[in-house]
Amino acid sequence: LPAARFEAIQARIDAKTKPLGALGALEELAQRLVALAELRGVTTAERLAAPRMLVFAADHGIASEGVSITSSAVTRQMVGNFLAGGASVNVFCRQVGMALEVVDCGILAALPASEGLVERRLGDGTQALHQAAAMTREQALLGLDNGRRLALERAERGMDLLGVGEMGIGNTTAAAALMAALTGFSVDACVGRGTGVDLGTLLRKKQLVIRALALHQGPAGGDPLELAARLGGFEIVTMAGALIGAAESAVPVLLDGFVSCVAALLACALVPAVRDYLLFAHCSSEKGHALLLEWLEAKPLMQLGLRIGEGAGGALALPLLRAALSFYDQMASFEEAGVKV
Amino acid sequence: LPAARFEAIQARIDAKTKPLGALGALEELAQRLVALAELRGVTTAERLAAPRMLVFAADHGIASEGVSITSSAVTRQMVGNFLAGGASVNVFCRQVGMALEVVDCGILAALPASEGLVERRLGDGTQALHQAAAMTREQALLGLDNGRRLALERAERGMDLLGVGEMGIGNTTAAAALMAALTGFSVDACVGRGTGVDLGTLLRKKQLVIRALALHQGPAGGDPLELAARLGGFEIVTMAGALIGAAESAVPVLLDGFVSCVAALLACALVPAVRDYLLFAHCSSEKGHALLLEWLEAKPLMQLGLRIGEGAGGALALPLLRAALSFYDQMASFEEAGVKV
Repeated sequence: LPAARFEAIQARIDAKTKPLGALGALEELAQRLVALAELRGVTTAERLAAPRMLVFAADHGIASEGVSITSSAVTRQMVGNFLAGGASVNVFCRQVGMALEVVDCGILAALPASEGLVERRLGDGTQALHQAAAMTREQALLGLDNGRRLALERAERGMDLLGVGEMGIGNTTAAAALMAALTGFSVDACVGRGTGVDLGTLLRKKQLVIRALALHQGPAGGDPLELAARLGGFEIVTMAGALIGAAESAVPVLLDGFVSCVAALLACALVPAVRDYLLFAHCSSEKGHALLLEWLEAKPLMQLGLRIGEGAGGALALPLLRAALSFYDQMASFEEAGVKV
Repeated sequence: LPAARFEAIQARIDAKTKPLGALGALEELAQRLVALAELRGVTTAERLAAPRMLVFAADHGIASEGVSITSSAVTRQMVGNFLAGGASVNVFCRQVGMALEVVDCGILAALPASEGLVERRLGDGTQALHQAAAMTREQALLGLDNGRRLALERAERGMDLLGVGEMGIGNTTAAAALMAALTGFSVDACVGRGTGVDLGTLLRKKQLVIRALALHQGPAGGDPLELAARLGGFEIVTMAGALIGAAESAVPVLLDGFVSCVAALLACALVPAVRDYLLFAHCSSEKGHALLLEWLEAKPLMQLGLRIGEGAGGALALPLLRAALSFYDQMASFEEAGVKV
C-alpha cells in the first residue's frame, strides 16, 4: 500500500475525539486492518464479516515418551469434541460469529468424513524427534502446500480474517524444539509445562529437546524447512503454510498461543513478508510464549493466563479487532463533534 | 454465598474438556459472575443481559493551572459528544450492547436536560486542591449518596453489570493526589501524563500534588472521606458511591482506567466488602494505574495501552465476561464429550 494511504488512515485516526494515540493497540489494529482491506479492495462492510478459524490437528511420536498430562488418544477425542461443538474454541467462535473448520493434518487414526472436518493427512503422526526426523522434507513441503492452498481457497471465497489454532498431544515439545532451533534461545527458555505437567516431566521434556537438537541441528545446517521437518509437527508445517497463503491474499491472521506462534516463526523464517499480516491475540502462560512474542516484535492484545491452544485465545480477541474498525468507522471527529482542544 | 456453592461452581469448571486451570482469568471471571448471579437469584439468561455503563463527568478547579493538554471547556463538549453518540465509549458500548448514561456530577456549566443525561450536580466544578479543599465534606457525602442511589435504582430495574467511566479535564491530577493519600505511594509513582502532557507540565502537576498533600493530609488525619473531599472530584466520589450501591445489590462492577480505579480505591477504603464485586478490564498506560491495580490485588484482563477513560476499556472487556459465562454454560464436560484423560 502506498505510504500516502497509510498517512491518510493515520490522519483519520488522529482526527477522532480522543487524545492522540489514546486508543493504544486499537489504533495499530485499525491501521493494519484498514490497510489490508484496502489492499484487498473490499468495501467497509466486508471487513471482518467472514472471519474463519482453522484448527490444525496432528499427533506426535514424542508423546509416547510421556511429555504431556495425557496420551495421543486424546488428540482424536478432542477433534471429535470440536466437530460436536463442545470445546472452548467452539463456544468462543459461536459467540463472536467465527466459522470453524478442523484440519486433520495427521492424527494417529483418521476420523470418518464429517461436516467441518478437512482431511489433509501427512501421515499417522510424526516420528519421535529425539530419535529420528519427525517427518521427511517431502512431508513438510506437502504440509506447507496444503496449508497455503487451504488459505488461498478460503480467501477466494471471501474469508476476511484467518484465525488459527491447533490440537496435538505432545506439540508443545515439538514447538519448543523448533523455536530453540530457529531463534537460538536456550532449551530452558523455550520448554514449558504445556497443559500443566509436573516438574519431573518438565525436566524429561527438556532432556528430550536437548537430544533432538543435538541429533538434528548439525544435519539441518540452519535451513528452516529442514529444521521444521526434523523437529516440527504436521499441524505446525500446515499452519505455517496457511499463514503464507493468507498473507498472499492480504488476509490478516489472528494468532493464538505458543504453538501457533511457533508456526508463525516458521512462516516468517520461510517468507519474511508474512510478518506484516500477523495479529497476536494474547500471551499465554506457556513459558516460551512471551519470549517468542518479543522475538517477533509482537505486542499481544491480552494476557489472560490461558494455556489451552485450539484457537480459543484468537476467538476471544476478535471483538477487539471489530472494536478497532468500529472506532475508525463510527467515532466522531473533533470537527463533527464540535470539540475544540 | 456458602462455600459449598463456590466448590460446586469450581467443580463444574474443572469438569470441562480442558486442562485444569487452562482458561486462566476466564475461570476466575466465571466463578465470580456465576456466584454473584446466584446471590441475586437470577436465571442463567439474566446474567449480563442488561449491562449498563455510567459515565461520571465533572470539572476540576486544578485544571486552570494547566495540568492537561486542554481546558475545562472540553469536559462539557465531550459530554455533548457522549450524548450525541460520537465518542469511543459510545461506539464500544453499541458494539457490545451496553446501555449508556452520562451523570453530570458537576461540570462547569449545566447542560439542557436530554435523553441519557442524569443530573446529580454537586456544584460548578471543584476548588483547586492545591489551594483549598476540592469540596466540602457535605458535598462528598452527597456525592456518595447520589452514586449509591443511582446504582441501587438501576439494579432494582434489572441492571446486571455496572460499567463505570469518567470525563473531567484535570481529573488525573485529583485522582493521583487521592491515590497517594490513600495508599502512601509516592507522588512520583502516582502522577502520570494523563491525556499526554509534556514533561514540563508533568513536573508542574507533581508539584501541585505535593502542595495539595501538604495542605490536606494533616487536617484529614487519614480519614478516607475527608481525603476524598479535600483531594477528589465530584465524579470520583459519585462513582465511588455507585460502586458501593452495586455491591449492595450483588451486581458486579467493571472498572476502566486510572480514575475509575481510584474511585474503587476510595470505595474499598470506605466499605472494604466492595472489593469482592470489582472486575478490572485493563491496565492503561497512565503511570499510577499498574501500581494501583497491584495495591487492589487486581489482575486486569487486557493491556491495550489505552489512556482515554470514559469507560471505553470496560466496554471493550465485556465480551470476555460473556465468554466466561459461555464456556461455563456451554462447554462439554469430559463425560459429555467422551474424552478420557
